[in-house]
Amino acid sequence: MSIAEVVRSGGQLTATDIYNSAVASWAISAAWEVGVLDELNGAANLDVVELAEKLGLDPIATRGMLQALASVEIVTRDGDTVGPGPLFDEVNSYRSYFHWLSRGCSGLYTEMPSVLKKENRLGAFYHRDGAAISYACRELSEFSFDPAFWAAMDRLPTDFAVAADLGCGSGERLIQIARKYPHTRGIGLDIGRPAVEMTLREAARAGFGDRITAFQADARDLAAHAEFDEVELLTCFMMGHDFWPRENAVKSLRTLRERFPNVRRFLLGDTTRTVGYQDRDIPLFNLGFESAHDLMGQYIPTIDEWHGLFSETGWTLVGEVPIGSPAASVVFELE
Amino acid sequence: MSIAEVVRSGGQLTATDIYNSAVASWAISAAWEVGVLDELNGAANLDVVELAEKLGLDPIATRGMLQALASVEIVTRDGDTVGPGPLFDEVNSYRSYFHWLSRGCSGLYTEMPSVLKKENRLGAFYHRDGAAISYACRELSEFSFDPAFWAAMDRLPTDFAVAADLGCGSGERLIQIARKYPHTRGIGLDIGRPAVEMTLREAARAGFGDRITAFQADARDLAAHAEFDEVELLTCFMMGHDFWPRENAVKSLRTLRERFPNVRRFLLGDTTRTVGYQDRDIPLFNLGFESAHDLMGQYIPTIDEWHGLFSETGWTLVGEVPIGSPAASVVFELE
Repeated sequence: MSIAEVVRSGGQLTATDIYNSAVASWAISAAWEVGVLDELNGAANLDVVELAEKLGLDPIATRGMLQALASVEIVTRDGDTVGPGPLFDEVNSYRSYFHWLSRGCSGLYTEMPSVLKKENRLGAFYHRDGAAISYACRELSEFSFDPAFWAAMDRLPTDFAVAADLGCGSGERLIQIARKYPHTRGIGLDIGRPAVEMTLREAARAGFGDRITAFQADARDLAAHAEFDEVELLTCFMMGHDFWPRENAVKSLRTLRERFPNVRRFLLGDTTRTVGYQDRDIPLFNLGFESAHDLMGQYIPTIDEWHGLFSETGWTLVGEVPIGSPAASVVFELE
Repeated sequence: MSIAEVVRSGGQLTATDIYNSAVASWAISAAWEVGVLDELNGAANLDVVELAEKLGLDPIATRGMLQALASVEIVTRDGDTVGPGPLFDEVNSYRSYFHWLSRGCSGLYTEMPSVLKKENRLGAFYHRDGAAISYACRELSEFSFDPAFWAAMDRLPTDFAVAADLGCGSGERLIQIARKYPHTRGIGLDIGRPAVEMTLREAARAGFGDRITAFQADARDLAAHAEFDEVELLTCFMMGHDFWPRENAVKSLRTLRERFPNVRRFLLGDTTRTVGYQDRDIPLFNLGFESAHDLMGQYIPTIDEWHGLFSETGWTLVGEVPIGSPAASVVFELE
């Protein structure tokens, strides 16, 4: 047996690795949410009982969570002493990916046997936890889409009278724009009532209640609105795939062109379907993103499918900022 | 670098392995339940679209499930062709472990942030899917506890007038006993009404409606019953840990001794807490079993803790059958 062969067989997962990883993914999500990951970050060693006490957690249950993290080397344990393990830093950086999956999409995946059956795929045939997905996506956006968004913004010469954000979520993007451009007003649009309310609430809390408004609207088939005439910057993040399949996406983007006649720049950021990876090499997050949308019946286009679309929509692609993680993510700069 | 060192470093997981494994564990559970694992078992290559059509599944959703299985080498994919991968046989053998975790215990693990908090650990502070756990445990028992149970039974010289099964579940054990010993009657006891009804229904369906009865009872504090005097064989599988912590277990087993004065053999089979494994080496299933019970606040004794208990209960340990998987499982032979 050559060393090359040994490495290959050593790198192969075992059934136990898969099993323990499934438990660990839930444990990562929970350890983030209850504050354990932040306590461990940069720490040498912590006492489990003291850690549980400090965070108001049951010590035995906390031990179970830490055992799961230790089984895949995210933490190291020695009796009741715990510290960061070899995978801690990477997992902690990308904890929002795990949370999106194991807290946000747990209902969808757990009910997979029912979701798979053709006869069940009508009406509300799956359930995800919208609040958990928002919680994850806010942090996920910070290290992925936000830097690319600002890189694209920094290339623009002036500020804008009004910016509109499609799928405004928590309102965070409009708040950041309002902070950076003191004369710009913001309009948030979201299909969900809770997101609209959250945007209004967060904008008011940030002191931008007079400059940011929001209302409920379906960006896939947007109705006309008088205020849209003033909009000069349009943004849309992590929902572009909702416009697809192709025929619908052409229609939706054309409608947006009509609804916002004075937009000078449209920044459209999303994760696309990966191409060219072997199944075994698909990067962190993308497998979850793609399989979840396959289960839900929502088409995810490749980046080339996006490229082939714009010329039919009235928008011109003038630049794009690639994003390293999630892989196959991008901010398209359209005008 | 020695070969031993190469194996060790090659065997380290990545964050992506953990993530993809979490998706795959749900996919294993679903692929079993909808029939995909049985179709793949022993097959060379299958067409994904034909496979989905045959089983009444949505082809795109099925592709998502298969991509998840392929990401950790349970299946291999080439376009729309799929076949068993390097891990298929092991995963398929132990699919009930994955189902127990990702379908049965998903609620418990998904709600881990709330379950961990001391202030929430009152009343029904967690939820598991009892039907899914029963589905998994029936197959799990077939390759683990059942062979050890029959090995212990085969050492017994005679048959028995009446056998009682504590935690009778689906009634399967009593049905098997009734089949093997034509003169033995069975009494099923379970804390859950659905299990009692299922035992009565399954016994009737198997033609043993006149020889098997069942009623609702809490084995941890069993009330007296006239029929118990006739019981000569007592069995209890996969619930012995519910007797614990120790003080309660002593009381429960003493009470059982009193309630069944004419029992000649008590076969008690359960998984115990593993001892002596490094966190990274804990075998398949045991991490889930231990962490789930830590989260639920249910004590899991080690095998030595069981050994140290019997002398205080009125039962004598006369033999035991070790079980390979789940690790640290055993059937105690008591009289």
